[in-house]
Amino acid sequence: MMSGQFITLEGGEGVGKSTQLRLLRDALQSQGYRVLATREPGGSPGAEDLRQLLLFGQNPLSLRAEILTHFAARFDHVDQVIRPALADGQIVLCDRFTDSTMAYQGYGRAEGDPAILALIGELQKQLGLMPDMTFLLEAPREVTRQRLAVRGVPTDRYEQADEGFHARIAAGFKQIARQNPERLHCIATANHSQEAVNSLIMKEILSRLSNV
Amino acid sequence: MMSGQFITLEGGEGVGKSTQLRLLRDALQSQGYRVLATREPGGSPGAEDLRQLLLFGQNPLSLRAEILTHFAARFDHVDQVIRPALADGQIVLCDRFTDSTMAYQGYGRAEGDPAILALIGELQKQLGLMPDMTFLLEAPREVTRQRLAVRGVPTDRYEQADEGFHARIAAGFKQIARQNPERLHCIATANHSQEAVNSLIMKEILSRLSNV
Repeated sequence: MMSGQFITLEGGEGVGKSTQLRLLRDALQSQGYRVLATREPGGSPGAEDLRQLLLFGQNPLSLRAEILTHFAARFDHVDQVIRPALADGQIVLCDRFTDSTMAYQGYGRAEGDPAILALIGELQKQLGLMPDMTFLLEAPREVTRQRLAVRGVPTDRYEQADEGFHARIAAGFKQIARQNPERLHCIATANHSQEAVNSLIMKEILSRLSNV
Repeated sequence: MMSGQFITLEGGEGVGKSTQLRLLRDALQSQGYRVLATREPGGSPGAEDLRQLLLFGQNPLSLRAEILTHFAARFDHVDQVIRPALADGQIVLCDRFTDSTMAYQGYGRAEGDPAILALIGELQKQLGLMPDMTFLLEAPREVTRQRLAVRGVPTDRYEQADEGFHARIAAGFKQIARQNPERLHCIATANHSQEAVNSLIMKEILSRLSNV
């Protein structure tokens, strides 16, 4: 029996993650794969409750507590949804995972503070599950800003953050990619159609699946 | 400048923690100490939001996620309330702290599963703050059951648990006390008046404060 594959999409706001997730799910299903498409923060009922607190809560948590709460949601998502699907041999596609916590909280909010990066690293280790493949979608900030403007008013805590924060996140993702060259595949989405980006990602995934 | 003291009360349901916390706060204040009395889960606005999910949430979390959520609340409580009060030289009295997570989740729910005990131990280490003194209040289950019956209908998830769970918690607290003989002071509350128990605890605290 083939065990499942865990594939994540990462990147800042407006780079095209949710569109690519949908295209990927459809493309893999049309080739006969069983696919679970999910997203973070959230993805299980209890994790969605925690997501509400994280994105819309009225009482801001300390930075360390915010990180713990993201991981609490992630542990629930992994224990109740992702691991069972992988054990069942499914391909799990997830919009955001631990790399987002490292980029947003570690490099964005904490500006790379080594104690915070170490806390996130230890929580990742305790979680005990990392993606088999991660696609880091990238686009220049002027392109993503325009895409977000088309979507309408920014709604959650992260979309409302300032430009310095978004620049630190982009640099943080780059740093994570440099540290994990086997797992992370960087894909520039600004100058390609959605279909072309999807083809690129599908090619990488099918190449890996044929070697499993 | 004297830095503060962090003192916790621990034990199962109905052993008298909240009564003793109140008596202790009053006794210390009447001797001129500045005292912050608080409790877990909760104790800060964000942690109280997480407490609501833990005690009354409709979507049960996985055991690991429940532990992470308790620690998320605890990190917020420590970062936003306990550490600032200690830095200000106050005595912080807290009804429940990490020993409760070890007893309830580690020994109660997980029945001492080494992987779960290790997860809790690692989170304690990351938290970076342990109590200076802990009073473990103990009473036979037939006594605490009667006290809880007087209080009325059990309301939260933990008070509704079965007898085997409560027995594992009591044994778990005993185990924690054996492993931390310097920090934990065991006090049997069943055969003493509330005032007598308070005197016993005050004597220990004043002896320690005079040596700080």
